[in-house]
Amino acid sequence: MDTQLDFLHLRRLGINTHQEPVVYMRQDCQVAISEGFYAHSRVEVHCADQSVIATLVLVCSELLSHEEAGLSEAAWHRLGCPADGEQARFHHARPVESMSFVRGKLYGQRFNDESAKAIIEDIKAGHYSDIQLSAFVTACAGDRLDLDETIAITRAMVSSGQRFDWSSDKVLDKHCVGGLPGNRTTPIVVAIVAANGLLMPKTSSRAITSPAGTADTMESMTTVTMTFEHMRDVVEQEGGCLAWGGSVSLSPTDDIVIRVERALDLDSEGQLVASVISKKVAAGSKQVLIDIPVGPTAKVRSQSMAQTLKQLLEKTGAALGLDVRTIITDGNQPIGRGIGPALEARDILQVLRNDGHAPQDLREKSLQLAGIMLEMGEKAAVGQGYALAQRTLLDGRAMDKFKAICLAQGGFMEPPVAEFTHCIHAQHSGVVAYFNNRFIARLASLAGAPNAKAAGIELHVTLGDEVEAGAPLFTLHAEAPGELAYALDFLDGHTDVIRIEEQMV
Amino acid sequence: MDTQLDFLHLRRLGINTHQEPVVYMRQDCQVAISEGFYAHSRVEVHCADQSVIATLVLVCSELLSHEEAGLSEAAWHRLGCPADGEQARFHHARPVESMSFVRGKLYGQRFNDESAKAIIEDIKAGHYSDIQLSAFVTACAGDRLDLDETIAITRAMVSSGQRFDWSSDKVLDKHCVGGLPGNRTTPIVVAIVAANGLLMPKTSSRAITSPAGTADTMESMTTVTMTFEHMRDVVEQEGGCLAWGGSVSLSPTDDIVIRVERALDLDSEGQLVASVISKKVAAGSKQVLIDIPVGPTAKVRSQSMAQTLKQLLEKTGAALGLDVRTIITDGNQPIGRGIGPALEARDILQVLRNDGHAPQDLREKSLQLAGIMLEMGEKAAVGQGYALAQRTLLDGRAMDKFKAICLAQGGFMEPPVAEFTHCIHAQHSGVVAYFNNRFIARLASLAGAPNAKAAGIELHVTLGDEVEAGAPLFTLHAEAPGELAYALDFLDGHTDVIRIEEQMV
Repeated sequence: MDTQLDFLHLRRLGINTHQEPVVYMRQDCQVAISEGFYAHSRVEVHCADQSVIATLVLVCSELLSHEEAGLSEAAWHRLGCPADGEQARFHHARPVESMSFVRGKLYGQRFNDESAKAIIEDIKAGHYSDIQLSAFVTACAGDRLDLDETIAITRAMVSSGQRFDWSSDKVLDKHCVGGLPGNRTTPIVVAIVAANGLLMPKTSSRAITSPAGTADTMESMTTVTMTFEHMRDVVEQEGGCLAWGGSVSLSPTDDIVIRVERALDLDSEGQLVASVISKKVAAGSKQVLIDIPVGPTAKVRSQSMAQTLKQLLEKTGAALGLDVRTIITDGNQPIGRGIGPALEARDILQVLRNDGHAPQDLREKSLQLAGIMLEMGEKAAVGQGYALAQRTLLDGRAMDKFKAICLAQGGFMEPPVAEFTHCIHAQHSGVVAYFNNRFIARLASLAGAPNAKAAGIELHVTLGDEVEAGAPLFTLHAEAPGELAYALDFLDGHTDVIRIEEQMV
Repeated sequence: MDTQLDFLHLRRLGINTHQEPVVYMRQDCQVAISEGFYAHSRVEVHCADQSVIATLVLVCSELLSHEEAGLSEAAWHRLGCPADGEQARFHHARPVESMSFVRGKLYGQRFNDESAKAIIEDIKAGHYSDIQLSAFVTACAGDRLDLDETIAITRAMVSSGQRFDWSSDKVLDKHCVGGLPGNRTTPIVVAIVAANGLLMPKTSSRAITSPAGTADTMESMTTVTMTFEHMRDVVEQEGGCLAWGGSVSLSPTDDIVIRVERALDLDSEGQLVASVISKKVAAGSKQVLIDIPVGPTAKVRSQSMAQTLKQLLEKTGAALGLDVRTIITDGNQPIGRGIGPALEARDILQVLRNDGHAPQDLREKSLQLAGIMLEMGEKAAVGQGYALAQRTLLDGRAMDKFKAICLAQGGFMEPPVAEFTHCIHAQHSGVVAYFNNRFIARLASLAGAPNAKAAGIELHVTLGDEVEAGAPLFTLHAEAPGELAYALDFLDGHTDVIRIEEQMV
């Protein structure tokens, strides 16, 4: 062996490994052999003046030549999007030092400002592999983060990202702990609050496993992917915005952690609180209203869990300089008729337009939340917020503000309508007794939401309604017949999506 | 859309994702869209009468066509090695039910026989993704498994695999907790014990991150990959064997769990004990000697940790019907001269052949361990085991037995010799004061061990030796000049592999 190849030519493979950078290499290539790489080594890749720590996946086929290394999308982006064929060097990555704090936590030590900062910075830099993220999330699971640790992690998350600083000291925000289909109050609340001269720089998330996030819903009417500067301009001009949080780099580690939590179906009260509060602080908010729906298939299932969460949210908020108020609401059934981006958007527009067919539960809840926020922002005396919110809606100023925000973000369009629909009817008469929120969300996803914007479910009944046999219960909406068929298949095996109980005399 | 494609054609991609089955699919293919798959969905793949639960990785390039799904090696094997082009159907996998026990553990519940069995069976079936395995390992980390939980997990691991049942009630075994380079006493001990008519059905592991496991060392002299039946025949014929444990399916979940623990650099005392004891029970052993080396760069770093481990090993062993004895030994320096498969094999053969140049520390420790085991097996009275072991070595019966075992396993060959070597000399005179066991292991790995069987390190000094400037300290062995150069590079930045201290007067 006279010549030695100590570099490989990069090739973008177009493989989506989420935030975890992955590099692919033949197990019998010179670099893998001479570096002593084993499967799932953590390796450092250097290309020009960029570098990334990646997980190594070995290949035993002709997928790659002996001179090539493949890059996942995350690795390719972190290396500055190198052209195919560029040379890169590889060596073993040093162990991630902040993992020692995660190990310490497992042995009974507690996180403090220093360790929280080290961990969050390493996660942001992409230094944690997926299994390391899983270990961190597991170490924080349940009630294992106390108040001080939650505050430390929240602070670290805020300082890891960009942060808005507004001139006003009345900067409102709201958040819903979630788990309820529909419940898309945010756009209505932002419109009412901003129409009354308060600032409300709202960022929202996209759906990961649910049929729609607020960002998905808004995207059926306007642009939500905005730069930090664009969002600032919109808020300075209109008082409010409805941006996708992922595009403005507030608390950037949050999405990474949430993805792993969801994959593990593991909740951490401390992480939840750090996630919510860090995003509000980074958005420059000062008064925050948090809606905690409680119900058997919602995220929070008991009043005692809601009380614990309320305490942790308020105290962590206070430590970070926020005035946090919480409201515990009914999480027994969906709010509004639509589930899915465009169907939820239609509900929102009906409320804003004072349409006689607007879903009253969505309208009521939006007015209630907006009313409290107008009081928090001192635009209404205590007890007068609801009336002011109602006037703002009735006189059209809320709709005008909503449209103005959409135009500032990039334009306004009516949400699309699905081409394929199918109505499900009651099999017998009785009273609507139970909504399985999880099945409803699943059905809407199967029908194509949120990727197919017009897809989802339109509900025709609410809890307590009396229905006759044959009365419509809900309609499936899909953009393609295959997706519609798929949702119908699910219904074959799951009849108890909405339960009708025969009335007792 | 008139025709709908609800299947894809499989393609083996030759990607090594370890035990985690992965399936690759275009994010814009019909199946991904109609099933609503998102990145890292857990999907169930059906092909002919086989199925597998796999992690979905989405692809946004021409790596795959719209009609294809790629399989990782683990997915391909679990589907029964389908030919390229075979059709498969895909749908969302149901959540892994035993993960609820892992979540419960995080909320303060304890594992019992039922939950341990459910978890171990799911891990064996490949139902846990890597991040789920990480959550399980993290939930068990440190001292979080109590004795009852450790026993429950050990029982579950035993019943998940095959198990030997020998007619004798004297079935010996040994284990070393590890972390020390070299220290390859096992083949010598097996030879001595079996030569005295006791059964010793020994299985060993391959190296994962270290320069050699006992299985790698044995493989430089004989065949170690054996079926369950072949191993049984060898033991029935020769009384002992030296098989690779991975090939005989004893406690099959153990390797899966260990890999994640190592990647996280996370120890769990309970997992360690369950791993060791389950393999011994599955091997049909009844009397087990466990060597716990203690030293600053060994796996066990303090006497108190050694004592805790000793208690847990003995009590768990007793619960599973094993007579477990432990011996706490000096873990300050490597045992033997060689580090790397063939170099360790050379040490072993020198001891077995009563060669005057045989490393005395390896010989002594092997005799000590074998002596205790001969007493445990009642072949020698208490205090007489060492002398019997010594006689068995000196009169050549140990070497004869070793060769007979190798021949029964598939043949005997002399270990290979490296073509490229480089000797490192002392820079000044003094006393050998410290071995950095981690650096020594790393150097041997860089030189090519264990894949290059002849590669590794040959030590020329031991602790306390007086050396002159220029005296040889150790020699690097490599099969290729590139690997030799790579180890030398490492030495440039890490001078303190063996520390020589000037003598105080």
